[in-house]
Amino acid sequence: MKLSLAEPTYLKESISIISDLVSEARFKVTPDAIELVAMDPANVAMVVFKLLSSSFTEYNVQKEQNLAINLSNFKQILRRAKPEDILTLELEENKLKIQLKSNTTRTFSLPIIDLEEKEQKVPELKFPVNIKTTAALLNDTIEDVDIVAESVTFQTEPKKFIVLAEGDLSQAKIEVPEGEDTKITAGSDTVKSKYSIEYLKKMINASKLANEVTLQFDKDYPLKLEYTVVDKLQLAFILAPRVENE
Amino acid sequence: MKLSLAEPTYLKESISIISDLVSEARFKVTPDAIELVAMDPANVAMVVFKLLSSSFTEYNVQKEQNLAINLSNFKQILRRAKPEDILTLELEENKLKIQLKSNTTRTFSLPIIDLEEKEQKVPELKFPVNIKTTAALLNDTIEDVDIVAESVTFQTEPKKFIVLAEGDLSQAKIEVPEGEDTKITAGSDTVKSKYSIEYLKKMINASKLANEVTLQFDKDYPLKLEYTVVDKLQLAFILAPRVENE
Amino acid sequence: MKLSLAEPTYLKESISIISDLVSEARFKVTPDAIELVAMDPANVAMVVFKLLSSSFTEYNVQKEQNLAINLSNFKQILRRAKPEDILTLELEENKLKIQLKSNTTRTFSLPIIDLEEKEQKVPELKFPVNIKTTAALLNDTIEDVDIVAESVTFQTEPKKFIVLAEGDLSQAKIEVPEGEDTKITAGSDTVKSKYSIEYLKKMINASKLANEVTLQFDKDYPLKLEYTVVDKLQLAFILAPRVENE
Repeated sequence: MKLSLAEPTYLKESISIISDLVSEARFKVTPDAIELVAMDPANVAMVVFKLLSSSFTEYNVQKEQNLAINLSNFKQILRRAKPEDILTLELEENKLKIQLKSNTTRTFSLPIIDLEEKEQKVPELKFPVNIKTTAALLNDTIEDVDIVAESVTFQTEPKKFIVLAEGDLSQAKIEVPEGEDTKITAGSDTVKSKYSIEYLKKMINASKLANEVTLQFDKDYPLKLEYTVVDKLQLAFILAPRVENE
Repeated sequence: MKLSLAEPTYLKESISIISDLVSEARFKVTPDAIELVAMDPANVAMVVFKLLSSSFTEYNVQKEQNLAINLSNFKQILRRAKPEDILTLELEENKLKIQLKSNTTRTFSLPIIDLEEKEQKVPELKFPVNIKTTAALLNDTIEDVDIVAESVTFQTEPKKFIVLAEGDLSQAKIEVPEGEDTKITAGSDTVKSKYSIEYLKKMINASKLANEVTLQFDKDYPLKLEYTVVDKLQLAFILAPRVENE
Repeated sequence: MKLSLAEPTYLKESISIISDLVSEARFKVTPDAIELVAMDPANVAMVVFKLLSSSFTEYNVQKEQNLAINLSNFKQILRRAKPEDILTLELEENKLKIQLKSNTTRTFSLPIIDLEEKEQKVPELKFPVNIKTTAALLNDTIEDVDIVAESVTFQTEPKKFIVLAEGDLSQAKIEVPEGEDTKITAGSDTVKSKYSIEYLKKMINASKLANEVTLQFDKDYPLKLEYTVVDKLQLAFILAPRVENE
């Protein structure tokens, strides 16, 4: 296996975001893509990451490989990549070799670890609500509600996406009308569900990768956030709802 | 009551500065202005703030209202205002409603609190010394003395403003001559008084609002710092002297 | 003694870097230069600093003087110097007077301290290896190895400078070929020696002063790092090797 990237940014930023949720994970390297599906330790959030072979300048994978590594260490190494570096990944004697090449040749090696965890499957989910908006708008919204509460309610009304949060003292309500930047697909019924702001704050860092985001959810049902760079990568998150015991 | 601001910056910065000194305070909303007079919990510093109705695009106040709120929470909400937002303040069912409107409509509500403290009156003070200088110069001076001591002596000499600080080890002395940027009105006698640097450091943040500052003081007497934006706002501080028991 | 600098940056940055290694030190002020030779408290690193009289606009030193001061306090004062300030150093009644002059005159005084430590001599060292490269490249290299280990091995191979680090888990290897930016003088034998990354991280801050750096070392022998600004200053560091007990 030998993979080269002329623009290390996508891999670098993706791993940095994922490592905020999952500290160790298994990559599946197929002839088509590098893939990762992982649950966070609290079993509340799932990350689904795919970096397509078309984003590499060299992509030489004979047969599918699984390799589990410590993502924090991987992130630290990737952070050393400068925009002008060519980044190469290779497997060598139970180590992942990461090479950064420009004037100098900098080679890091990281141990392949044993992950007891069995392979995660992405659950099949169906969503009546699909909202496509700018990543910047979602960021603002989450930062808004973060100052009043720990959980946030996403709600649809005809041609409107509503975000609500209620703290002990203060409340926040953001109304996002359908418009040029925001497309809302939803039935005529109001759909309403609650999610953890702490997790959302980690996920919205994916706005560094893509300008748009898709939100899908249902009443007391998981949320799916999806960031896509066409022909390059997909980074999606599935977040369990906060169901109230009332 | 309904008040709208097309430039949220003045309110935002003022509340941020005031909340460093006072955590809860009562605003008086009159047909002319929003006013606040508050003492810090240690009774060492007073804040006098006035945001004139002329700085609002809509200013609808039928009768004078008093409303006490938590300034830290208010600051956090105002910090979410972006330059392009129109900020509207309304009273609704014992809540202060703060609306930020651009593409989206973001509404925060903050509880009106009970403040036992009785209304503060601005003391009548007379000062023999009046120094008008740039806010940047005062900032530099306070940051200079901050590295050697905890209190600073302001002193006048003919056509000179002198700032002194003496720590256990080091000393600092800044001489500011009268000049284009600095106008000094003082009698022929030397006037000298000592103030807390910790408090001054919080007050000089008002340099974000205005380029000029007026200092007024007397021997072992309070200091008054005043920042003004003509037709818009006034932010003044009164600081008790540090009288030495020698 | 009276010394004036029109560009305080060199003195300011030098003292800031040195004070990370040594908290108190004795300066020798000769008719030619201000000099400092000091060991860090752990006796692992030596600093050799020389600021030539030619970098001063006024340099009035009748006879050689020794003056020991607290470098952290001196750093804090120098940090207050703005690029447009003229900085003057004078000795006055057992105090070092530091004056910063622009619109205002700001005078700080710092006590001369008693340093029991006897005068340090720069050891005479001979090095078979001399590498001249850009300060930026050395910075990158040290930051690279810092993520995997606490010590780093410098190694020469014909026309190559190799930097290695091995942590419990990860490894890093940087190969710097001879080239336009990097000149390597070394014998035909491989020379290899190990040094503390923590110390190197403090030393490479001298890249703020000079664009180039010279590295000299030998097997299990001290390393000398040298940053020079022609006709102005020299800042060198000598670092003891980490000899392995194997």
